[in-house]
Amino acid sequence: MSRSVSALAGTAAASFLPWSVASRTVAAAWDEAPVDPAKADLIYRTRAPRNGEPRLKELVKDWITPTPQFYIRSHGANPTVVADQFKVSIAGMVDKPMTFSIPELLERFPKSSVTCTVSCAGIRRYEFIKIKQMKGVPWQEGPIGNAVWSGVRLSDVLTAAGVSSDAKHVWFEGADTVVDGNAAFPFGGSVPMSKTREEDEKLPGVLLATHMNGQPLLADHGFPLRTIVPGYIGARSVKWLQKIVVSDKPSPNHFIADVYKMVYSGTPVEIDETAPIYRYPVNAALCSADNKDGKVTVKGYALPTGQKGCSISKVEVSPDGGKSWVNAAMGEQTGEFCWQFWSATLTIMNPETEVCVRATDSLGNTMPESGPWNLKGYLYNAWHRVPAKQLLN
Amino acid sequence: MSRSVSALAGTAAASFLPWSVASRTVAAAWDEAPVDPAKADLIYRTRAPRNGEPRLKELVKDWITPTPQFYIRSHGANPTVVADQFKVSIAGMVDKPMTFSIPELLERFPKSSVTCTVSCAGIRRYEFIKIKQMKGVPWQEGPIGNAVWSGVRLSDVLTAAGVSSDAKHVWFEGADTVVDGNAAFPFGGSVPMSKTREEDEKLPGVLLATHMNGQPLLADHGFPLRTIVPGYIGARSVKWLQKIVVSDKPSPNHFIADVYKMVYSGTPVEIDETAPIYRYPVNAALCSADNKDGKVTVKGYALPTGQKGCSISKVEVSPDGGKSWVNAAMGEQTGEFCWQFWSATLTIMNPETEVCVRATDSLGNTMPESGPWNLKGYLYNAWHRVPAKQLLN
Repeated sequence: MSRSVSALAGTAAASFLPWSVASRTVAAAWDEAPVDPAKADLIYRTRAPRNGEPRLKELVKDWITPTPQFYIRSHGANPTVVADQFKVSIAGMVDKPMTFSIPELLERFPKSSVTCTVSCAGIRRYEFIKIKQMKGVPWQEGPIGNAVWSGVRLSDVLTAAGVSSDAKHVWFEGADTVVDGNAAFPFGGSVPMSKTREEDEKLPGVLLATHMNGQPLLADHGFPLRTIVPGYIGARSVKWLQKIVVSDKPSPNHFIADVYKMVYSGTPVEIDETAPIYRYPVNAALCSADNKDGKVTVKGYALPTGQKGCSISKVEVSPDGGKSWVNAAMGEQTGEFCWQFWSATLTIMNPETEVCVRATDSLGNTMPESGPWNLKGYLYNAWHRVPAKQLLN
Repeated sequence: MSRSVSALAGTAAASFLPWSVASRTVAAAWDEAPVDPAKADLIYRTRAPRNGEPRLKELVKDWITPTPQFYIRSHGANPTVVADQFKVSIAGMVDKPMTFSIPELLERFPKSSVTCTVSCAGIRRYEFIKIKQMKGVPWQEGPIGNAVWSGVRLSDVLTAAGVSSDAKHVWFEGADTVVDGNAAFPFGGSVPMSKTREEDEKLPGVLLATHMNGQPLLADHGFPLRTIVPGYIGARSVKWLQKIVVSDKPSPNHFIADVYKMVYSGTPVEIDETAPIYRYPVNAALCSADNKDGKVTVKGYALPTGQKGCSISKVEVSPDGGKSWVNAAMGEQTGEFCWQFWSATLTIMNPETEVCVRATDSLGNTMPESGPWNLKGYLYNAWHRVPAKQLLN
């Protein structure tokens, strides 16, 4: 746990969030992204909505991703939020529907933190696009980040509201507006109720987060409140969270009922037969290289499958396109639902080859040699391949 | 379409079901299975409940599986059914809840038939058991069969009852009682509403079947009424159907909420994250061999993925454990959601090798070389391997 979070833990709600700062009222603005791409912290794949990922060599400098380098994935404009008036409600299959302002939420419930990795389901989609053109943000390996999230536990809020024994899912809805053809609706999602209960003293199942890396959330990351679901794809960690609904079924929101599903034909029946994507799969990427007299030290990240208790068991690197493999040295910093850094020093004999990386996790999940295509281009996790030439420069 | 069904199509409901036959009242009896296994049509894997599969060489004699050779898969005892009093109800998110006797159902709605293959999700489970012991019926390649099913379309019944526009699933519940520890409940399941609508003039999406191969259903197959869901695992074709419920969520029945899911750890969260199994995957098996002077003619079945419009595009047979492959000749009889027979004549050089079979369907799905293990042992569809020695005898 980082120093900044320990420091936060003892502070009162009043100082936990700097409500008096006028700039925390956020305008919906597409044009906030920096104009000069060379000076921007993120490489923007789209600007309206804003979708940006960091440079890979920056990404592996710090195990806790600095907020400016943390990827941004939005489906609509940042909503206009008047911080002092913002409220989140909990309703549905509960005994007592409730509404809280952010200070009320932080006063009433014990504060909790979690360090965890959030990763977009569309990570590495450009690999699918190489095979066949498809819609969707052409993400490379960067829409992933590890941060310290602080707020209150969803389970505490659920207990206060009194959940029906028939409840099976918890829905989340943001204050944003997503425009899709002639329709306009908020971004939303849901998680199984059992996920909210899979927690212990140290680790919340689901967090209602007000802070990221010890600071109030930035507008792009969901100020003033978002869910954080350790182990799940980023889409389940709904930003600008203003509505929680307890139900006996998954949310009917477009982003869980229709998209963020692994489908191949995309027929209505296939979509209805298919579960929403929740957990992210084991994945890894080579992010930086340092060539000293032909000895190339490569570094990267590896992410275990987002299942409780799962960790990275090994990362292998091939200097010759997959013919031979060496075990990478593993970074010391680890945490449940967190990525792990790795490094290896290679002698690359043939500059025309590819350097390959594959990770295996403690549940035995491993990255396949090539990735089977899916209609929406989600969860690409085949071996990460980088042309050797690129590393030798 | 078989002759027997054409003949049935013009008959009145009164003669469609022989209600006057007293023997159609079925007693719950575990001991009905024949005593002498050598004389039985099926090989019984369990007797209470009754679970039996045919001999493979019998299975590929007829493209329409004769009823005595059709596998039986039950989770409880056959219920006691008094045919004249049996009723099926439709309720839930409908304008007009309704109840029908079987003659009422057949009088009110147009009769419909479908020839389709039903296959148990546990088919070939013994392959998983070779890797690791697990619970569940140790099925070999036989719990599969192709029959002509006749009755009325579920979609017609839904239209008559008036379905809410918010409805998303249709639940089915049998008249049987499954005992699980201290609990006792009926077998049940559900299908997405879109599946009931994926139909055309010739092919019902879901059938409420009273007849199998031109005769009233046998007790073991769900007399007097069962669902038949073309393309789906057998578990969704609920037998002894007495309750239909229209809902906005899948059935909470144990057999769709908890089991018949592809899980690996089996944690509550993983079960809740995972969709029920609906469709069966591409599969194939070598079922008979005829050795004439070292030329071995092998025959078998291949089943395309249970998705509308999908068919078998090729079946390959390897006489040498997967080193070389020959294309099998395909049987002439085909149908949507139906298996296809195939045959090939092989020269087997090495009696110590395995003969392998793999099928590929028109959606590009193919059988993997080896099957990844799953906790409940469902949907094994790796190459079917038979010791060459067994074929040379």
